[in-house]
This record gives sequence, C-alpha cells and structure tokens, in this order.
Amino acid sequence: MATDRAGPDDLVCDEHLARAFAFLGKRWTGIVIGTLTARPAGFAELSRAIPGISESVLSDRLSELASAGLVSREVREGPPVGVVYRLTPAGKALSPALKALARWACNNLSL
Amino acid sequence: MATDRAGPDDLVCDEHLARAFAFLGKRWTGIVIGTLTARPAGFAELSRAIPGISESVLSDRLSELASAGLVSREVREGPPVGVVYRLTPAGKALSPALKALARWACNNLSL
Repeated sequence: MATDRAGPDDLVCDEHLARAFAFLGKRWTGIVIGTLTARPAGFAELSRAIPGISESVLSDRLSELASAGLVSREVREGPPVGVVYRLTPAGKALSPALKALARWACNNLSL
Repeated sequence: MATDRAGPDDLVCDEHLARAFAFLGKRWTGIVIGTLTARPAGFAELSRAIPGISESVLSDRLSELASAGLVSREVREGPPVGVVYRLTPAGKALSPALKALARWACNNLSL
C-alpha cells in the first residue's frame, strides 16, 4: 500500500475516499441512494423521481446496490403486488455524506 | 423544475446532489480535491500521491478545478520556480463531505 511507505510529510490520496468515488462515481448510483433516503419506493416511482435515468440503467443500479448490501428488495403484499426498494442500514449510513455534498454543491457550484 | 410540481408525498431527487455528482462523478475529480485537502502541492507531488492518474488527466482535472473556482494556481518563487496548487475556500468547503464519504466507505463498502 502506498501509505505504508509514505513519510510524515508525503502527500497521499485517501484510499477510502478513492473507494467511495470508485463506487459512487458510477453515473446515477449516488442519486438513486439519495432519492431512497427520503423513503422506500417502488421501481416506477423511482423512475419518475429521477429525471433522465432510463429504466434499464435504474434496474442495473438497483441490482448493484442490492449486491453491495446497500438496498434491500421487498415484495409488497398486494393488491397490487409490487416490489419496494429500501435502504439497508449501510445505505442509510451514507445519508450525512450525501447531505453534506448537496449543501456544498448548493453553496459552491455555480450552474 | 421537477420539485415545483411535486406533491408532499412525491419522491424527488435532490437537484443539488445531482449537481454534486455531475461534477464529482468525473473520474479523479474528488480524489484530486481530497488529496489537496491535506495541503497545497505541486504537480509532480500530486502525480506521485495519486496512484494510477496519468499526467494529462491530472493536468485536465486541475484546469477544470481552477475554472470551477475550487483550486488556485500560484507560482512559487524559486529556485526552483514551480507552480503550487491550493484549494480555494470553495474547494476547502468540500472537506467535511469528503471526510464523511471516506468514513462511510471505510465502514460500509467491502473491498
């Protein structure tokens, strides 16, 4: 690991941050999590809530988030029967960071 | 704006968060900012600190960050003369969000 050999004054990039961006840098991933922080939702609802995302990409992102243990998929008793996507505790734990990012963008990124 | 028409129970994606990810989702952008939160640094130093980034991409990212007002470029009096990249207040303001992201990745993303 690069950090093992770094002297006290050496500049190093944060490996955890690099991991966060490798995961969240994939287009729509952070937005899907951010949208689910409001409340659990069905596929159609998520699709409507996120302008510009295609259904196939939303489906891929939800599968990836489920594989990473950040989103759970629950069958809702009908009628009508449906699937609800819900953040797991690990997914919810991202909420403070997303709030801080949104606040920063609001204050510091011009349109 | 989508939010203008949203009812109280409608799910909406956060437009500021979408803006944050549109900007930071570009590969290496967040890592370069994160690395500069430690201290100002020269180009060669940044290049060494961030494993895997090419010099041309680092150069592009630093220009983009300067254009966005997040990084300043200062000529260091020699010898040797050099250029130092430093976060502006708007760039430094991202630090709490990056720390929160790194902490989340450390605790919740498996390798």
